[in-house]
Amino acid sequence: MMRSQLTIDDRLNAFCKDTDAYLEGVAGGPLSGLTFAAKDIFDVVGYVTGGGNPDWKATHEAATRTAWVVSVLVAAGATMVGKTITDEITRGIFGENAHYGTPLNPRAPGRVPGGSSSGSASAVAGELVDFALGSDTGGSVRVPSSFCGLYGLRPTHGRIPLDGILLQAPSYDTIGWFARDADLFARVGSVLLQREIRAVRPRSLVIAEDAFGVADQAVQDALRPAVDRIASLIGHCTTARLAPARLSDWSSQQQILQGREAWETARDWIDRVNPRFSFEVAERYRFASAISDAEVEAARVSRQAIIKRMTVVLADGVVVCLPTTPTPAPLQGERLSTRDVLRPRMSTLTCIAGTTGIPQINLPLAEVHGLPVGLSLLAARDSDEMLIAFARELVDTLKR
Amino acid sequence: MMRSQLTIDDRLNAFCKDTDAYLEGVAGGPLSGLTFAAKDIFDVVGYVTGGGNPDWKATHEAATRTAWVVSVLVAAGATMVGKTITDEITRGIFGENAHYGTPLNPRAPGRVPGGSSSGSASAVAGELVDFALGSDTGGSVRVPSSFCGLYGLRPTHGRIPLDGILLQAPSYDTIGWFARDADLFARVGSVLLQREIRAVRPRSLVIAEDAFGVADQAVQDALRPAVDRIASLIGHCTTARLAPARLSDWSSQQQILQGREAWETARDWIDRVNPRFSFEVAERYRFASAISDAEVEAARVSRQAIIKRMTVVLADGVVVCLPTTPTPAPLQGERLSTRDVLRPRMSTLTCIAGTTGIPQINLPLAEVHGLPVGLSLLAARDSDEMLIAFARELVDTLKR
Repeated sequence: MMRSQLTIDDRLNAFCKDTDAYLEGVAGGPLSGLTFAAKDIFDVVGYVTGGGNPDWKATHEAATRTAWVVSVLVAAGATMVGKTITDEITRGIFGENAHYGTPLNPRAPGRVPGGSSSGSASAVAGELVDFALGSDTGGSVRVPSSFCGLYGLRPTHGRIPLDGILLQAPSYDTIGWFARDADLFARVGSVLLQREIRAVRPRSLVIAEDAFGVADQAVQDALRPAVDRIASLIGHCTTARLAPARLSDWSSQQQILQGREAWETARDWIDRVNPRFSFEVAERYRFASAISDAEVEAARVSRQAIIKRMTVVLADGVVVCLPTTPTPAPLQGERLSTRDVLRPRMSTLTCIAGTTGIPQINLPLAEVHGLPVGLSLLAARDSDEMLIAFARELVDTLKR
Repeated sequence: MMRSQLTIDDRLNAFCKDTDAYLEGVAGGPLSGLTFAAKDIFDVVGYVTGGGNPDWKATHEAATRTAWVVSVLVAAGATMVGKTITDEITRGIFGENAHYGTPLNPRAPGRVPGGSSSGSASAVAGELVDFALGSDTGGSVRVPSSFCGLYGLRPTHGRIPLDGILLQAPSYDTIGWFARDADLFARVGSVLLQREIRAVRPRSLVIAEDAFGVADQAVQDALRPAVDRIASLIGHCTTARLAPARLSDWSSQQQILQGREAWETARDWIDRVNPRFSFEVAERYRFASAISDAEVEAARVSRQAIIKRMTVVLADGVVVCLPTTPTPAPLQGERLSTRDVLRPRMSTLTCIAGTTGIPQINLPLAEVHGLPVGLSLLAARDSDEMLIAFARELVDTLKR
């Protein structure tokens, strides 16, 4: 159960201090008795959706409807206890918000929680709620899952309706969620995906050698036992490179396509309002505004090649495993130039699901010097239920 | 005399609300009985210099000395009553501050005061103080002088020591001041320039035809009577083009050189702090950060050619007259894209003195539909006293 608001604020800085959105869950539902929080990009009727930016909040009206996912969860019995801090307009991956502060990472003190669904991950990891809603455009559920040691899913693009959320780049935007244990994660997933989560074991595991190569050696070593357990459970395992050439070349097309779309989505508001952003966020919009049509065309070609390649790799019930992030959570307050070195490594790993629209689940199965770092599984489109069920089965197997 | 702080805040939003810097003028000095305000880039011992940006303020300590110009004014008897709003880190020309609000333009309600010395111009135009200190790197005294109907000088670069001010780009930074009448303007100038302001009439007036061509026709028409009066007082007048080719080509080299220098000045702080800026300000730093060494080299060549050209034009006691701004003050809250159309026209006019380091005085001698618009005089380096004295003489002549 949720602790008092003051304690929450003091301990984790996870919740929006000025939006006390509360929706009592319907009695008798499958999620009754559970509490959740939602990133402050989900509309709740009567509240202004703040999007992590004070000028967004000041220039928008209170929502006139509640986001579809929130309504579905409340109807299923879960009680929403508040909105959580997000990176500005979801444009960040580290979870530091220059306006509202950085939610604490309960699993890695002094380090960032990851973003942009920073407050949601923080609140779940700090046991302030049972689960929380986030969104993932370029890694915003997967990264905080890895940094905070949580289960988290980027679902198949299009599986969960985006109605009633603040969009960043709709061709990439997805809604995901966080939980501390695989069973609860699956129960929430069943409601959000509106499908039973049945055990369907993957046919084969592919260890993405080049994706592991992006991670620190310590992360590779820490993930190895989990990879071995998964391989043994599935019974068939191979090692392969995902990219015919270099995996690090894969992320630039998403920077361009997602960037262009994010700019097209926000530009009129930016032009009208001249909003305050952290320099980092402004810089990324500025980069995006300068993308040429020729760059977009070239990026589309690259994207198609990656989709084609991943379709082949993931055919016939294959799951691919890879590190979710190349490192555990970095320290809070590092220099922008330090972030600029790490960011491309992170997006090399996150771009695979982002580009292709396939689902990716983070499994919180490892630590490096006590800091969480996650292992991810990728599967073909609409294999969300399989990934969730397999995560649950993996834990059951470990318990036995 | 100054009205109560509350009244000031309510009426003009000119003063910083959180810095009540007050320095009593020394009795018996030449400026005794006068009040002034200083843009919040001037150090006053015991106060943090805010620079118009909350993250600058939060990451700097209280000043341990008072800026040279402030000390000199107080020693001459003037009483400093407060610090005034500035565009963030002086990086703006319109006077809109996304964090602290836009000082009102008492002469043009609903319109911007001009920047970056926005609050200083506003406070003087609103008769809250007798005069005020500003700074001018790319137009930050001249533009608000024109928009608010004030006397304002960008002095010869290097004439007034920059000790104890927040620097933007030291090769371009100058300290200027505002007053409502030419006589008081000269009295303050005598203290700041540490020289008597004696009447030395220019030998010849050059009307800068291409600079006038940058202004709206209504501005050209409004300035014509003042030009005629000046021509008649000087007794010798010619019309000439300043730029051998196009004047509009002159400003890009300053964008590059000043931009590079502003970036070099601020980059370590930006990298460390990831400060919040309005999108407009962040965009300009981002532009500046991307300037190449080759662009800088080419800009230096252009700059030298402009300096050479203006040295010839201004030889032998010539003054050049031109519109200070191409338009009266634009409306508050216009779109960034609207500003982007106006800004290059403004910098075409302001870059001449900025590039060459020569002095430029704004004379508040005209209006367009009741909105102030200024006429400027340029003269050779170190002719500051001549410009100030001539402004005073011009008024005296009109009075007679």
